[in-house]
Order: sequence, then C-alpha cells, then structure tokens
Amino acid sequence: MTVRLVKHSASDADVVFAARVSTKGPESLPAGGDLGPTELALINFLMKDRHGSPFEHNSMTFYVEAPIFVLREWQRHRIASYNEESARYRELKPVFYVPAEDRNLVQVGKPGHYRFEPGSKWQERSVRYGIETNSYEAWSVYRDLLNEGIAREVARSVLPVNVYSSMYVTMNARSLMHFLSLRTSNTEALFPSHPQREIEMCAEQVEAIFADLMPVTYGAFQGYGRVAP
Amino acid sequence: MTVRLVKHSASDADVVFAARVSTKGPESLPAGGDLGPTELALINFLMKDRHGSPFEHNSMTFYVEAPIFVLREWQRHRIASYNEESARYRELKPVFYVPAEDRNLVQVGKPGHYRFEPGSKWQERSVRYGIETNSYEAWSVYRDLLNEGIAREVARSVLPVNVYSSMYVTMNARSLMHFLSLRTSNTEALFPSHPQREIEMCAEQVEAIFADLMPVTYGAFQGYGRVAP
Amino acid sequence: MTVRLVKHSASDADVVFAARVSTKGPESLPAGGDLGPTELALINFLMKDRHGSPFEHNSMTFYVEAPIFVLREWQRHRIASYNEESARYRELKPVFYVPAEDRNLVQVGKPGHYRFEPGSKWQERSVRYGIETNSYEAWSVYRDLLNEGIAREVARSVLPVNVYSSMYVTMNARSLMHFLSLRTSNTEALFPSHPQREIEMCAEQVEAIFADLMPVTYGAFQGYGRVAP
Amino acid sequence: MTVRLVKHSASDADVVFAARVSTKGPESLPAGGDLGPTELALINFLMKDRHGSPFEHNSMTFYVEAPIFVLREWQRHRIASYNEESARYRELKPVFYVPAEDRNLVQVGKPGHYRFEPGSKWQERSVRYGIETNSYEAWSVYRDLLNEGIAREVARSVLPVNVYSSMYVTMNARSLMHFLSLRTSNTEALFPSHPQREIEMCAEQVEAIFADLMPVTYGAFQGYGRVAP
Repeated sequence: MTVRLVKHSASDADVVFAARVSTKGPESLPAGGDLGPTELALINFLMKDRHGSPFEHNSMTFYVEAPIFVLREWQRHRIASYNEESARYRELKPVFYVPAEDRNLVQVGKPGHYRFEPGSKWQERSVRYGIETNSYEAWSVYRDLLNEGIAREVARSVLPVNVYSSMYVTMNARSLMHFLSLRTSNTEALFPSHPQREIEMCAEQVEAIFADLMPVTYGAFQGYGRVAP
Repeated sequence: MTVRLVKHSASDADVVFAARVSTKGPESLPAGGDLGPTELALINFLMKDRHGSPFEHNSMTFYVEAPIFVLREWQRHRIASYNEESARYRELKPVFYVPAEDRNLVQVGKPGHYRFEPGSKWQERSVRYGIETNSYEAWSVYRDLLNEGIAREVARSVLPVNVYSSMYVTMNARSLMHFLSLRTSNTEALFPSHPQREIEMCAEQVEAIFADLMPVTYGAFQGYGRVAP
Repeated sequence: MTVRLVKHSASDADVVFAARVSTKGPESLPAGGDLGPTELALINFLMKDRHGSPFEHNSMTFYVEAPIFVLREWQRHRIASYNEESARYRELKPVFYVPAEDRNLVQVGKPGHYRFEPGSKWQERSVRYGIETNSYEAWSVYRDLLNEGIAREVARSVLPVNVYSSMYVTMNARSLMHFLSLRTSNTEALFPSHPQREIEMCAEQVEAIFADLMPVTYGAFQGYGRVAP
Repeated sequence: MTVRLVKHSASDADVVFAARVSTKGPESLPAGGDLGPTELALINFLMKDRHGSPFEHNSMTFYVEAPIFVLREWQRHRIASYNEESARYRELKPVFYVPAEDRNLVQVGKPGHYRFEPGSKWQERSVRYGIETNSYEAWSVYRDLLNEGIAREVARSVLPVNVYSSMYVTMNARSLMHFLSLRTSNTEALFPSHPQREIEMCAEQVEAIFADLMPVTYGAFQGYGRVAP
C-alpha cells in the first residue's frame, strides 16, 4: 500500500495566520514565518478549545494505491476531494492485496470489542492460497471477457475487492486529523478506534507525512487525545 | 436492485415554507398546506434562478440493495448520509449481480463519447457464464475461509464487486436532484450524463419516488434541464 | 430569542435502524419501534466509539428569531441548511435585542480565559440606554431612506447587528450535537466551550427540544462528555 | 472592498493530473507541467460533462475586507473555510461602507425581476448623509461603551452591518466557480443571477484572480455558461 504526498500548501504558520485574522489582524506573524513560543501556545490553545476552522486553510494532496476495500472505507470521509482510477475508462492492472505474514487473521471477542490474533500455520496457508488463487482466477475471467469485446465496466464486475486501485485525495488538516482519529488505533487516543488493519497501514503513512509538514499542529493533536477539533 | 423509501419528511410545501421565510414570513402558506398557483410559480422561480437552499429543508431515507460497484459510485456523492452493511461485522449473503439479457455489453466510440450496444449471443453467454462461475467460486473460497476461523474482514477480500451489499442513505431534495442529474442519461438534460447502466437503474427508482413525494419540485427540475439548483 | 421546532423526522429508533443495517440487517428492531435494553446499549456504544453516521439519518427543522450577531455565529456551522429572512426582499421589523438585567456585562481575564461578571448599575444603564437609543436612531434612518424610495438592500446597511432576523435551519442529530458542544458552556463537557451568552440562549432551547425528541441519544451525548461523534 | 490572494496551490495542471488518475494514470502529463492541446480539450470536456471532482484538488486562500452584510452573504457558501475577525476578541476599526456615486440606489420591478436604477441627486445625498451619520453615531456609542468597561461582545451590538470586517477564506476551484455563478450577474450565464452589487464587487476580484491562476479552467467555465460543474 502506497501513500505519496503529491503536493501541498500546508504549514503550521497557516494555522497561526488564520487564527490571527480573528484575534490580532493578519500582519502579526514574526518575520520569516517562524513560529515563536507565542505561536506554539496559540496552536495548542486552538486545539484544546476546539477552534477547528484555523486548521482548514491548508491543503494536502496524496496519491494512494490500495485495494478497493480500503478505498471504500477511506471515501466515506466526506470532507475531502477524490479522483479514483476508473474501471470504466481504464483496464485495471493485475495487482492484488494478500495479507503479509504478520497480519492477525483471527477475530475474537464480542461485537464492539473484537481483538485480532495470529492464525495458525494452516490458517495462514489457507488465506494466502485462497486469496491468491481467487485473484488469479478472477483476473483470468476479466481478461477473457475483455478479449471477447465485453465493455470494461461489465467485465470489471468479476474483480474482487482486494484488487488495487489508485486515487488522488485532497484534505485539509482538520479533516485529516478526523481521518486519523478514526482510522488508527493509537493508544494515546481519548476515544480509541478499531480500524481494519489495512486502512490503518495507509493512515500511518498519512500521519507520518502530516507530522512532518505540520509538526506543531500534529503535536497538539497528539497531546489533546487525538480528538480532531 | 432495490431502492425502497424507508421514511421521509419531504413535500413541495416544505420548499415554499423555507422560501417564504426569506420573502414573506412563514405565516403565509395557504391553509391546509395546499399549494395554489402562486406557490407553483414560486417553486419554478426558485429552480430557474438557482436558489438552492429552499430545496434542502426536507429529508428522504432510502434502503438500497445493490452490488458493491454501484454503491461505490453512489457513495461518492458527499452531501448525503450513509450506513452500509459491514462485511467486518456481518457475514455477507451469496447474492451476486449478473447482467440481464437487455444489458448492452459492448462499448463503442471514443472516451467521452462511448455508446453501448447489445452483444452477440456468444458474448451474452460468456458474460453470464463468466460472472456466474466467478461469483460461485469466490463465494466458495469465502465460506471456506470463514469455516477455518478466518476473520470476516480478511475473508471478504475474495468477494467480487458484483456481490450485493445494502445501505441506508439519507438525502435532501437538492442533493438528490444533483444525484439524478449525474446518474441518469435523461434526454431532457441540458448537460447530458453517461452513467453506468446499473447505477442508473437505481437512480430511476429514486427518481420515481422523488417525483411522487415532491411533484412540483420534480416538474421544475425536469422543466429547467435537470440541472440541480 | 425564539427557537421553535417546525417539523422533524427524528427519533432514537432512527439511530438503531441505521446502525443495524451495518450489523444485523434492518429487520431486527423490536416490534413497535420500542427500544429495549439492547438498543439503549447500542446507542451508547455508538457514541463511545464515535460511530457518527448512524446519528445522521434524521432531520430537525427549527424556526429561529434572533439578532443578526447570533445568526452570524450559527451560520458558521456548515453541516446544516439555512433560509434566512432577506433584507433585500423584505422590509425588516423594528425589533432589537437589548441585554436583560441578568446579562453579565464585564469581561475579565486573558484571551482564551475570559470570564464575564455583572456590571455596575451605571454600566447597566449605559448599556441599556446606549443600545436602545442606537437602535431607535438606526431604525429612524432606515425608515427615512425607504420612504425616499431607496432600495431595501441599500437602506438596510444602517441597521445594527442587534436587529432581529429570522431563519429556518435544518440539522441532523450529529451536526446538532456538534453545534451544542461549541455553543453551550455545559460543565459536563470534556472540552469546555466559551460561547457568547446570546447564542447559548438559543442553543439551550435547541438542546431541550433535542433531549425531548431523542432522549437516549441525548443521554449518551451527555454521558460521553458532550463530544459529538 | 478588498480581495487579496494570500496563498494558493492552484493551476490548470492540477485539474489534468486529477482527471488522468481516472483515465490514464498520473504519469501522463507532458514534461514541465505544460498543457498541450490534448490537455486543453480534456479540461473543456470535464466542464461540459460536469465531471466536477477534478476541479477540487487545488486551493486558494483570500484575505477579504468587506462590510458585514457582504460577509454574511459570502459565508452562506458552505464548501469553503472561513476565519473572520472576531468582535469578541478584537476591537473593530471605524471603517464603514458608504455606496459610491455610481451605485444604483432605486429598485424597480417585481420580486424576482428587480432592476436597479440611479437615484436622484436628493436621494444620493440622503443615502450618503444617512449612512455616514448613522455610522458615526454608532461608532460613538460603541466607543463609549468600551470606555465604560463593557465587554466587546456586548458593545459591538450597536454597530451597523456596513461596518467593515475581515476574513480569510479558502476555496477550491469548483466551489469558487459556484460562488461566481451566484454572485455575479455576468451576461454569458446560462442561469443569470441577481446578486447584490456589493458582493458582486468582491466576486469580480475573485474572478480576476481565478482567471489568472487557472486560465484554461476559467475559459471552460465561461464557455459552458458559467454553470459550475
């Protein structure tokens, strides 16, 4: 699974600028756009008091490659812009997701309190064999139908949800923090989430990029329980 | 494919009420909520002049059963609320979409100008056989994995995008008209769309329900080129 | 300030229905739509685990009369539908907001930690006299300009932000809870807010109506720190 | 009235990149990000066929100074991010909007078909005198209340809606085009709008900036009747 930052206009200074429009006028940032202690305190205050709007005046565009079942979960986040590879316009590629060895395969516990545990060797083999064979067979039918002149949009209906697709997604920091709060199982979270491991693998990549672009905002998010403002 | 109205709070009078707040005060509707000629003219004026907000104070909730590739397109519409059957929490059912005989199977023309034409008998048989076999095989792997104790969220990755899922979706009339404008190929449209036939089959059911609940609004939508305000 | 429920399609059962689509199928509610202990537990679980979408399949429409400075704050909430009295289409009415005697008039403390305290008798008189006179004078200029044939949209520019306006607003429960979390200063809140008292007076009316329509959802909101899911 | 571009990440190439994810893969742009005839045709096709999402992966942040009655109209556009000068946190400045000489002052015609015509000399003088005096008097009361120690959020209620405020607003091109379609009265529009002149003065500045940043997108918007996709 791949999450790559394509372009961005996002920095901690953007948050300060936007907040200062409300409180001091936009001329008040230290020269050079550097953040001093006052600016750090301001960002933390905004997070704590849940002033969400200053975290919106920025934009990050990611290119994502992930299986369809992951993109389906991602695209439920509505405060974002999406353009996905179209299986109506393009022929998909034969790339399928198969869980790696460290993927917990067995679900225990009650609804709302599921935990995941490693599978036996036998279960691991079944998963790998079952998913690989299924992907291969489905791909074969897909190709056959295309070769017989069937429309892409019809032929694609045989492809399983572990086939890879790709998309552009653009989010602002506020929406991105909301995404992280729901799609990671970070133990610092005030309200713990239980995402499927595969979308969490994407979310962790998003988180690393975000932490790099907006370290002060990220620190405040982490410090106040990972509840998006 | 099934689209069933679960509940609603939506009538043409809602549009008039909302618009009258702006222009006359809310006390001004004819007794009994009946719409006279003035109210009909008002709704048509609002549509023509693209005053969109009066069309939002209403709500329609649908229960939808459709294959995953249809729900994926539907859920790209962000001004709506969704709850979908979860393949993490529930075991899916062995119901798969196979195109009916009248489904055009062959795509001709250039990108942006595709047309669809019927397939040959041979093509029809290939599609039916290919999709049915693939669905059956995938279901068999899915059941095997579940029987071996594999987590639902892992096992489901073998299921193809023509497996049925179900969802609740709630929209207001403005968002619904936008959905119709993009997901039907109605010839009255000022900006014709080219949706995949399967989502159009859902959209046509939505359209019939909407036309029944809000006939004046629907008439104005149709009359002004099916461009949502 | 007035907040009146105009119409709604909102009950706790709506939350359960929407959640059950994900987990059990929609046929699973107890007869009569009554909620048993399982349903109560479900709603609390959804709130705790921040599954927000089941709280969206409902709709409440309010008619609000409040001064412009309150409507300005309210309309910053974007997940809602608004239709407001138009001072371009209608002549406004001479109704102005003047703080009541129990309104704290003096602000102390530092930015981000303001508190409000009662004013002296003198301050109270100044506020009342200043605001009343100003309203009266502005209204007089407004009327004069209208009488001279000046367009409403030009004449209205003399009216102060304490003039009353009215609007329709439609929200779902999820958005409404977010509104409450920011526009009330409830001491149960995990993240306390510091709204202006006047919008809080509206929010308290919204809260009472919401608690009445969806008591279980409201209880869960209150119980989990008034953080909207 | 001032509209100033503060920062942006917006170009016609962004539209092409996003669309190509759907159709060809993101590696397909000509070197240097230059747009050739194929790219121009693609943007026009997207506009004509109302593929809106490729126009969303960009962002423009404006700093706006305008009277409150203009900001009120602007902020009704919900697909945007706002941070406005807070009269709770800051003391406002004594800057008020007074119509210039070329502002049409008289409204004729019926609702929905209003036209505006110049006023007489007498009417012009009344407007100027009435608005200036009212602004001056209101400011005087505002200052008096502040001097007596009254909280800013209470004192501000005497200020008229022609007092200037300022805000940051961030929009993407799709939302911006929707804003332009409703807030300008351009004669090329398929669905003509009738905005108040003052917000149109802002919208014209937005339009000039947009046309400069994304000339091909702007041309397509203009060419297809100024109906946002």
